[in-house]
Amino acid sequence: MLKKTTRHSLVDQVIIQIEALIERGQWPVGSKIPPEPELVAELNVSRNTLREGIKALCHAGVLCTKQGDGTYVRSNSTLGVAIQRRVLKSSLLDTLEVRYALEREAARLSADRRTEEDVQRIQGYQQECNALAEEGDMHRYVAADMKLHLAIVEASGNPMLMELYGHITEAIQESISMHLDKTFGRGLPENKHVLLVEAIIGKDAEAAAQAVRQHIDELKKAIEMGEI
Amino acid sequence: MLKKTTRHSLVDQVIIQIEALIERGQWPVGSKIPPEPELVAELNVSRNTLREGIKALCHAGVLCTKQGDGTYVRSNSTLGVAIQRRVLKSSLLDTLEVRYALEREAARLSADRRTEEDVQRIQGYQQECNALAEEGDMHRYVAADMKLHLAIVEASGNPMLMELYGHITEAIQESISMHLDKTFGRGLPENKHVLLVEAIIGKDAEAAAQAVRQHIDELKKAIEMGEI
Repeated sequence: MLKKTTRHSLVDQVIIQIEALIERGQWPVGSKIPPEPELVAELNVSRNTLREGIKALCHAGVLCTKQGDGTYVRSNSTLGVAIQRRVLKSSLLDTLEVRYALEREAARLSADRRTEEDVQRIQGYQQECNALAEEGDMHRYVAADMKLHLAIVEASGNPMLMELYGHITEAIQESISMHLDKTFGRGLPENKHVLLVEAIIGKDAEAAAQAVRQHIDELKKAIEMGEI
Repeated sequence: MLKKTTRHSLVDQVIIQIEALIERGQWPVGSKIPPEPELVAELNVSRNTLREGIKALCHAGVLCTKQGDGTYVRSNSTLGVAIQRRVLKSSLLDTLEVRYALEREAARLSADRRTEEDVQRIQGYQQECNALAEEGDMHRYVAADMKLHLAIVEASGNPMLMELYGHITEAIQESISMHLDKTFGRGLPENKHVLLVEAIIGKDAEAAAQAVRQHIDELKKAIEMGEI
């Protein structure tokens, strides 16, 4: 009953329409949204309704209005913003445990379900990581490393798992980068992904889960030692 | 940079303050919030700022205004609302896989970290489940079953894991109840939790994870067979 009332308000319809435009990529993150008169015509609502919808999306962290300039897309997902805010309230260890839970199950599912295209994409990112590690290009290595992990989770074929994992990973990316930065010169990061990638290609769910475990245990140890 | 601008707006401060009141339980879900003049005085903001904050929280699904009556607390978390909306867009199988990932890792951590109080709480809910199963009181059994699982996840000592698990479980509770309804007469649900509870009491993380796996595999099978 409550749901219906709020769902049917005009402002909510504006919010839902704008969110859909952003989710479909028609309004990419970082872009400026069309001017007010255009939106009033396109969405067929009053200026007040539109303004209220935009304000609500600003408070939700999805849009952002710059005085005297215009309104920009800040995030493509209210879930992403909500998770980011939750991560800010959590310890890094707690957040890593949640991320680990998702990644471990994703690795298992990906080993079962990965397609040939998944394997090619994963191997592509793995090669990129190896090359960048050899070059010592830490900044680009971090980006390639994230893409590799996201590609592995994506191969699970579960969009909700992928989205949650992506948002949590994004929210702690800075801390993880700090760790990579410190360990970059130390070991041989190019070998880090071998076991995980091999397990997924070989469709070995147990080995894939085990490889994720090793990876996260390393990070946890680094936190406990005060390195992150 | 962007973050700072929006964070510091007066409306955002109102939103953060109200969210904190709700999270701390001072404004419970379902309760009516104090009248406008009282809030204007308490939060020390203008009526317009207050109204805008309340509207934004209504669109976020946290509050809900009933025409001619007042404003009620609808949810105690923007994250919960965002997850609920995401679950609505997902298949039940995808959602169950995410829930399983969280519960499995939680069971592992709980086996490691559970305190004596955790054990007592878990055993209490287990006995409640058994008694209700024997009585054939399906409705109350479902509630006790959910409390038992939440208590197990809570014993992990990870509030973020607990919160995500709770929100996802709540969002699919209706579907799960349907399944329990169908299977209630069939087997012996009172034995369902024995392995999991024993593993956590015995601090056996592997056995705990395995027990969760069996439990979820059953649900997955039921979905595949079209029972849910």
